[in-house]
Amino acid sequence: MEIELRSDTFTLPTPGMREAMFQAPLGDDVFGEDPTVNALEEKVAKMFGKEAALFCVSGTQSNQIAISVHVSKGQEVICDELSHIYLYEGGGIMANAGASVKLLKGDLGRLTVPQIAASISPDDIHACESRLISLENTVNKGGGSVYSSDDLQAISDFCRQTQIPLHLDGARIFNAMAVTGQTPLQFGAWFDTISICLSKGLGAPIGSVLIGSKDFIKKARRVRKRLGGGWRQAGLLAAAGIFALDHQVERLKEDHARAAAVAKICADLPWVDSILPVVTNIVIVRLKEGIQANEQVAVLRTKGIRCAPFGPQYIRFVTHLNFDDAAMAAFETQINQ
Amino acid sequence: MEIELRSDTFTLPTPGMREAMFQAPLGDDVFGEDPTVNALEEKVAKMFGKEAALFCVSGTQSNQIAISVHVSKGQEVICDELSHIYLYEGGGIMANAGASVKLLKGDLGRLTVPQIAASISPDDIHACESRLISLENTVNKGGGSVYSSDDLQAISDFCRQTQIPLHLDGARIFNAMAVTGQTPLQFGAWFDTISICLSKGLGAPIGSVLIGSKDFIKKARRVRKRLGGGWRQAGLLAAAGIFALDHQVERLKEDHARAAAVAKICADLPWVDSILPVVTNIVIVRLKEGIQANEQVAVLRTKGIRCAPFGPQYIRFVTHLNFDDAAMAAFETQINQ
Amino acid sequence: MEIELRSDTFTLPTPGMREAMFQAPLGDDVFGEDPTVNALEEKVAKMFGKEAALFCVSGTQSNQIAISVHVSKGQEVICDELSHIYLYEGGGIMANAGASVKLLKGDLGRLTVPQIAASISPDDIHACESRLISLENTVNKGGGSVYSSDDLQAISDFCRQTQIPLHLDGARIFNAMAVTGQTPLQFGAWFDTISICLSKGLGAPIGSVLIGSKDFIKKARRVRKRLGGGWRQAGLLAAAGIFALDHQVERLKEDHARAAAVAKICADLPWVDSILPVVTNIVIVRLKEGIQANEQVAVLRTKGIRCAPFGPQYIRFVTHLNFDDAAMAAFETQINQ
Amino acid sequence: MEIELRSDTFTLPTPGMREAMFQAPLGDDVFGEDPTVNALEEKVAKMFGKEAALFCVSGTQSNQIAISVHVSKGQEVICDELSHIYLYEGGGIMANAGASVKLLKGDLGRLTVPQIAASISPDDIHACESRLISLENTVNKGGGSVYSSDDLQAISDFCRQTQIPLHLDGARIFNAMAVTGQTPLQFGAWFDTISICLSKGLGAPIGSVLIGSKDFIKKARRVRKRLGGGWRQAGLLAAAGIFALDHQVERLKEDHARAAAVAKICADLPWVDSILPVVTNIVIVRLKEGIQANEQVAVLRTKGIRCAPFGPQYIRFVTHLNFDDAAMAAFETQINQ
Repeated sequence: MEIELRSDTFTLPTPGMREAMFQAPLGDDVFGEDPTVNALEEKVAKMFGKEAALFCVSGTQSNQIAISVHVSKGQEVICDELSHIYLYEGGGIMANAGASVKLLKGDLGRLTVPQIAASISPDDIHACESRLISLENTVNKGGGSVYSSDDLQAISDFCRQTQIPLHLDGARIFNAMAVTGQTPLQFGAWFDTISICLSKGLGAPIGSVLIGSKDFIKKARRVRKRLGGGWRQAGLLAAAGIFALDHQVERLKEDHARAAAVAKICADLPWVDSILPVVTNIVIVRLKEGIQANEQVAVLRTKGIRCAPFGPQYIRFVTHLNFDDAAMAAFETQINQ
Repeated sequence: MEIELRSDTFTLPTPGMREAMFQAPLGDDVFGEDPTVNALEEKVAKMFGKEAALFCVSGTQSNQIAISVHVSKGQEVICDELSHIYLYEGGGIMANAGASVKLLKGDLGRLTVPQIAASISPDDIHACESRLISLENTVNKGGGSVYSSDDLQAISDFCRQTQIPLHLDGARIFNAMAVTGQTPLQFGAWFDTISICLSKGLGAPIGSVLIGSKDFIKKARRVRKRLGGGWRQAGLLAAAGIFALDHQVERLKEDHARAAAVAKICADLPWVDSILPVVTNIVIVRLKEGIQANEQVAVLRTKGIRCAPFGPQYIRFVTHLNFDDAAMAAFETQINQ
Repeated sequence: MEIELRSDTFTLPTPGMREAMFQAPLGDDVFGEDPTVNALEEKVAKMFGKEAALFCVSGTQSNQIAISVHVSKGQEVICDELSHIYLYEGGGIMANAGASVKLLKGDLGRLTVPQIAASISPDDIHACESRLISLENTVNKGGGSVYSSDDLQAISDFCRQTQIPLHLDGARIFNAMAVTGQTPLQFGAWFDTISICLSKGLGAPIGSVLIGSKDFIKKARRVRKRLGGGWRQAGLLAAAGIFALDHQVERLKEDHARAAAVAKICADLPWVDSILPVVTNIVIVRLKEGIQANEQVAVLRTKGIRCAPFGPQYIRFVTHLNFDDAAMAAFETQINQ
Repeated sequence: MEIELRSDTFTLPTPGMREAMFQAPLGDDVFGEDPTVNALEEKVAKMFGKEAALFCVSGTQSNQIAISVHVSKGQEVICDELSHIYLYEGGGIMANAGASVKLLKGDLGRLTVPQIAASISPDDIHACESRLISLENTVNKGGGSVYSSDDLQAISDFCRQTQIPLHLDGARIFNAMAVTGQTPLQFGAWFDTISICLSKGLGAPIGSVLIGSKDFIKKARRVRKRLGGGWRQAGLLAAAGIFALDHQVERLKEDHARAAAVAKICADLPWVDSILPVVTNIVIVRLKEGIQANEQVAVLRTKGIRCAPFGPQYIRFVTHLNFDDAAMAAFETQINQ
């Protein structure tokens, strides 16, 4: 049995989701006339207690749009050095916004107020004005680590006080909520803008939603257009997103349980050095000295297990809705073969 | 009866197209593993005689990617002043590529070799190096005007000779071919890169394809990623594109016949001053002195006819696959009410 | 005798100016501690009735800084198609600010309120928000044409009303004042920001001054730094600028009289077709059909006269402080040889 | 006595230098006709064994131009996290070139081949293509640390092999040579492009020189123009640069000796925790726990000694040609008062 654990982006639409897509009323979203897109945007904005939302092609796009709206040339984004927005978005912060980054070293990708406060640029022409603080939650490269409510509240307070906007790359925000019991309304209150992803754990084929104030989303719509993200009958995809939000959020806990099980199995393997703390659906395994990530990935592939190299000495497994009990059982068998 | 003539982007997927979408095998296109996306890209590349292709979210995105790959900061794109890439893509040439534009005044948006040749920048630090010539065909703002094969051959020869790349915004290239009998292979030979649109006359809900050399498309894939255009199970949409190319190209001639009929009807209306030559599916009507485009559009809307203002004194009608014989008849009745 | 008429940028420092430079107290201007730079900035700000000023390396730099402060990515600058900021600044509007241009066709480079008003972008995601109107006065490529006070007042009123900033490329603003009797304070009142040049008619070796509000100049100082325009003991050059403002403004009228004389002489030459109206120190001569600008420039060079090609069919002569009565007489003799 | 040790940029032109400036033949450098600028550019190019050079306004400008020529949007510069190009150039890498940075943690700002090799991006659309490696020597923020010839040779070999250009921010390269005995020709052989500064230890009032191949400098000249760095009678300043190279290089050793003496004096002060190794003209002092840099700088100012805060817990002293034996003696007296 072929087991896909490279990413939760590999999920395929479920039959119910396909049905919802098939029946969705459509229109031209560039003209703001796709009723299903409008329904998704309203639903998500309301869920997070914000004024408005924008349906985007990808998490990269919704992050990049947010950055381009918040930050201008010669200003800077403050984020953890493990951030997806810095590492995996093709240099978009710089190429799209012309902005600089200040990279902090957090705890598994999580920042604290003292760190952030110490990093704010002085009023000096040599430096870049600090104009955005961007968090990621869960932190992909931190092994799916999550922020506590106290830390988020403190960072949010700091940002309000210093009038620096606070953005959340919430590609896996529903995974974080599944662990902590935090609510969308809390996140809406903590952050100025949030990017959520429908195509990861939630299982929709395509799409992210960017959430913020009415004025922010108006500007975001312009940036989306110039990035080529204005799409036509996107209601097809928005329908999948609505279905995912209605039916596929609760089950994220199952992914987390299976990730814990995957970690437990891995812990006993001879080529495993250690494993980052597993709290959500991501398992990052450190390989023993002398074992190359690329080679170990290839070995596992011969056993029917697909995972991703994550730097030279780490590999990553991500559980998701197509990784069910049968797959879990097969995983245990096949990895020990 | 509500008649939609604002744009051919308003077309809805036909039942056959929906069926094709439903049955498409899917994968994660960011990893290059969506079989239907791959099939579409191969099909289009082959059709135009090019090495490779890239499935993009929109015509704006495929144009903007092409420009970003061809042109660097401080260099310039030469195009007609009516070009979509300059007028309607949110300033992307400048914001995405950092490039300048040199705007020529063509005949209904069509350029000639002498014009282009005279506009190439000298080798002077005050000027911007001319690094891309971009044509549009049909020219949207030129009333759907088309280039002759002789003119395209001459421009192509000039570009080869001067080693300046030649790009085609082919949002409605199949409309041009329907009129002239030109073939995709001819276009592939004339142009270095081409952007074709699946969501206009062809009737797919979303998507464009960018075509070029293998090396060009490799670079394009990077730019698409940083613009946030990397999508996951895009095979859903690619299936619609394949269906459109297989089943909805031949019928473009019907749109052209209906556009001619629309123009004939409009010619007799009391508020019409004149009409740009109609050769494809676009009818641009100049209003009589003193009549505002916005107001006339509103008047027609009360009659159940939707069209678009196109500058202060023009309105535009675009025919498409949802504008059938019944709609045509209704148009004639309703516009004369 | 070698006669230099290519540009008024060729002027060499006069003995008095050299003396002023030699005696100037200096400091490190990056730290804001060069007393002579500070004196120049204060002097110019006060002269134009503005809060602050910034000493820059060139007119291109002061224009580009102004544009970068006023306009963000995806927004646009409205200017005449003959503008220096568009034609001769290496694509800086796009490369430095990521902004687009809307190019209007004025009368010898001069715009009017109806033109500008008609060009403001609608609130539409396809378009670029109009965020700066930039005039040039005198208009270099318009043959040194000048704006009337009425026109400037009207444009200024329009900008205040629409809340769109108004910038002046005043590279030769003192030439305009010498003709019209307008004062610096009037310009300060009409425009939000002004770039004046010390190294053209005024005769300083290097330098421009950007003028505006305190807040604007603070931002400008940051942009200047990232363009590499932060200089150290720039008081050396600022001293020349102060000297020029104190001693070399009145004499601009002599340049204008000599330009008129040059035009009169040219009018009778067999290879001259016509001459743009001459009101300041620029004479733009249209060559007779069949005569190439480059060739005519070369012919004149053999006669000891240097002028500049200005497009394929025009040549330009610019009078300046090193073009004195003796040079004027020699010009008449040599051009007729 | 007021003692200036904030930076070696505070040096004032010596009488000999002023004399050289006064007598320099001048022309318009934008037209390439300033004989003194041309002489400086030829002199420096030849000194470093390169084809060409460009006289620029500042080290920031010459670095930024080099980066803009080497690196395009979406590509990255690899450098130490202490680099001036990242920390002190106003975000120019991102704003001017649209490029990303990969920040390595070297030894006092010095990188090694294994570090660099491990940091080169894989061929992956999520990442930025690594297109420039930039070193700084001496490293300002590393306390004036210098590279050994072996390390430079190894890095140069690596870059040649991987075909990634190698740039040197040589703001204080002559200080490095004074310590190591390395020659300009060696640096010309190791690096593709070099930026040297005339206005720091060398004592010229303004200016840097960018050195590289003929083709590189041609492109650099275009970028300089759009950054507003095209200047007119710059020979005035070039003359100072020539004088500095001819007469003020040998004496850098004196600055180093005095820096060592400054460090020795500081080592005994009660508020000093430790001092970074001093090898050139920079002394970076770590303050004892609980002492703020800003406050200590203020205290020293009351004693007539000016130094610079360098982050919250460090202060920096820089020796230079205006810090002579008398100043040295006064420093010792005053700091102990």
